[in-house]
Amino acid sequence: MKMMTKAAGPLPSRYSKIGDDVVHVRASGKRVVLKVDMLVGKTDIPPGMTYRQAARKSVAMCVSDFAAKGVRPDSYMVSLALPRGITEAEARELAEGFRDASRKWGLKLTGGDTNEGTDLIIDCVLIGFADGVVGRSGARPGDAVVCTGWFGYTSAGFRILMGGAKTERQFGERSVRSVVEPEPNLEAGLRLSKYLTSSIDSSDGLASCLHGLAKESRVGILLEGLPVAEGVAAFGELNGVSLDELALFGGEEYLVVGTLKKASIARARREVEGAGGELLEIGAVRKKHGVFLAKAGGETPVPDAGWRHLS
Amino acid sequence: MKMMTKAAGPLPSRYSKIGDDVVHVRASGKRVVLKVDMLVGKTDIPPGMTYRQAARKSVAMCVSDFAAKGVRPDSYMVSLALPRGITEAEARELAEGFRDASRKWGLKLTGGDTNEGTDLIIDCVLIGFADGVVGRSGARPGDAVVCTGWFGYTSAGFRILMGGAKTERQFGERSVRSVVEPEPNLEAGLRLSKYLTSSIDSSDGLASCLHGLAKESRVGILLEGLPVAEGVAAFGELNGVSLDELALFGGEEYLVVGTLKKASIARARREVEGAGGELLEIGAVRKKHGVFLAKAGGETPVPDAGWRHLS
Repeated sequence: MKMMTKAAGPLPSRYSKIGDDVVHVRASGKRVVLKVDMLVGKTDIPPGMTYRQAARKSVAMCVSDFAAKGVRPDSYMVSLALPRGITEAEARELAEGFRDASRKWGLKLTGGDTNEGTDLIIDCVLIGFADGVVGRSGARPGDAVVCTGWFGYTSAGFRILMGGAKTERQFGERSVRSVVEPEPNLEAGLRLSKYLTSSIDSSDGLASCLHGLAKESRVGILLEGLPVAEGVAAFGELNGVSLDELALFGGEEYLVVGTLKKASIARARREVEGAGGELLEIGAVRKKHGVFLAKAGGETPVPDAGWRHLS
Repeated sequence: MKMMTKAAGPLPSRYSKIGDDVVHVRASGKRVVLKVDMLVGKTDIPPGMTYRQAARKSVAMCVSDFAAKGVRPDSYMVSLALPRGITEAEARELAEGFRDASRKWGLKLTGGDTNEGTDLIIDCVLIGFADGVVGRSGARPGDAVVCTGWFGYTSAGFRILMGGAKTERQFGERSVRSVVEPEPNLEAGLRLSKYLTSSIDSSDGLASCLHGLAKESRVGILLEGLPVAEGVAAFGELNGVSLDELALFGGEEYLVVGTLKKASIARARREVEGAGGELLEIGAVRKKHGVFLAKAGGETPVPDAGWRHLS
C-alpha cells in the first residue's frame, strides 16, 4: 500500500522523464559509478572551438574516465550556466553536441539544470553501474605499463589554437581535432579493463598518470620510451618545444594508461585491436619508487608535473 | 578471475575514496535517484550571504527535492568553479558549508571536480536509492492539497538582502535566514511521502508548484486560502507589495507541496509533526482545469508565473 501511493503507479521504465523533479535510473549493478567534470568557457574552451564541440567534449571527458576504469556508462545529466547573451543558434549547438555524444557512446541524457551565468559552464555528470572498478593501486613489480595511443597531438593542438604555433597543415588539423573533438575509445577501454591491474585516463598528461599509478600502488615505473605521435618531433623543432614537454606534460589525450601482467599483453592487445584501438607497451613496473625515463645509457627522473589550463 | 583483476582486490566499503578517478557507491535500491542543482555566484548569492552559507545552500536545494519525492539522500558530489582571487579563508568557508550540510542531513561527500572560473559556481549532485519516487501526476479530484509550512519569508528575505525593503527587525532576521540558511525538513518529507499522491518542492514558488501538479495530473486545484507566514502582510504593506506576490510568486521556500487522499490527512499530519514539521491543508484537487484562489464570493485564476533570479 505504501509503495503504491508513493510511486503513484508503477515505475516501469528504465529512466525518469526529462523535466522530472529528480532523475532516476534503474540500477543494474552492485555499485553506481559517477563522474562529474566541469568545462569552463574561459579556461577550457580555446578560440575556434564551437559550442557544439564544447558540449560533446564535456561528455567525452567523463566517458574517458569510465573507459579507463572499465565501466560502461549508462546515462548522463548536464548542469549548465549560460551567458545572458547566448543566441538561440548557440543553444541549439549545445543541444547538437549533447546529441552527438549520446549517439557516439550510446548514452541517454536524463536531465539536469539550466542557469544564467557570466561564462559558459557545462558540468556533465556521467552515471553507470558495475560490479567492479579498476583502481590505481593494483600495479605490481613485473607488470607491463601500457597505453592505448600516441601522445603529443593535444599539446600541439592547444598551442595552435591559442595562436602563434607554426605547423605543417595535415599535422595541425589532426592536432586541433584532438582538442576540439576528442575520441576516447570506450569499447577498447572496456575490453582492456578485464586485464588491467591498475589504470587511469590521461586527462592530466602522461607524467601525471604514471606518478598517480606509481604512488597509489607504492611501486615505481621505468618508461622505456616516449609514445610520441608522428609529426610531434617536427612540430617541436619548428616551435622550439621539447619532445618531453609535448608528450609527457600535455593532457586531455583521453587515452588509457595502465598496467597489466606481462602474460596478458598478447590477449589484451587482440581485444583492444578488435575495438579499433592500439595497445602500446611503454614501460615496466618495478620496486624502486619514482618514475624514470630510459635514455641513452641511463635513466632520467620524470617530474610529477601536470596539465595546466589555458590562461 | 576477470573480476579479481578488474577490481584489483575487493571493493568492500560503501563509498570510493575522495580523489578516486570515479566515484562509486554501493547501490541499495532498485533505482538510483539523482538531482543536480547549480548555484551561480552572480545570480544566486545575494549580498550578505557567506561562502559557507552558499555551500550549505547548494546541498539544501537538492535535499529539498529528495524530501519532496520521498527519497532519503545518501551522498553527494560537488563540482566547483572558483574565481581566481579566492582566498584560503573563503575556500575553507566553502568546506565548512559542505560539512554543515553533511552533518545536518547525514550525507557523505564522495568527490567532485574543482576548476577556475570567473564567478563562483557550486554544482551539487545528490545521490540516493529508492524503490519508488513520488511523481507529479497522481493527484485525483477529491484529494486534499497540502504544504509543509508557511510562505512569504523568502520573498521578503530576498527583497531585504537586495537592499531597499523596509522591515520590522525580528521578521527581517527570520526572512533573511530563510534565504541564507534554508531548512528543508528532510524527515518530515520522508514521512509525509508515504501518503502523497503527487508532490513537488517549492523551489520555484507556490503558484508554479500548483500549476506543475495540476498539469501533470490533468486536474485542477482550488486554493482555499494563502498559507502566508506571520508578518508577511505587514511587510507587504510597508513595502507596497501584494500578499499574492509574496506568497504565490516567491520561491526557494524548500517546502513540500503535494496532494493526498482526504482520509490520510490526520495520519500524515501526525507523522509530519513527529518530525518537527507542520502540515497545512490549503486546497482541494478537482476536475476543472487550472489553478484558482477562493476569494470573497468567488474564485480568481492564479497565473502560472515562476520564481525569477536576482538580476
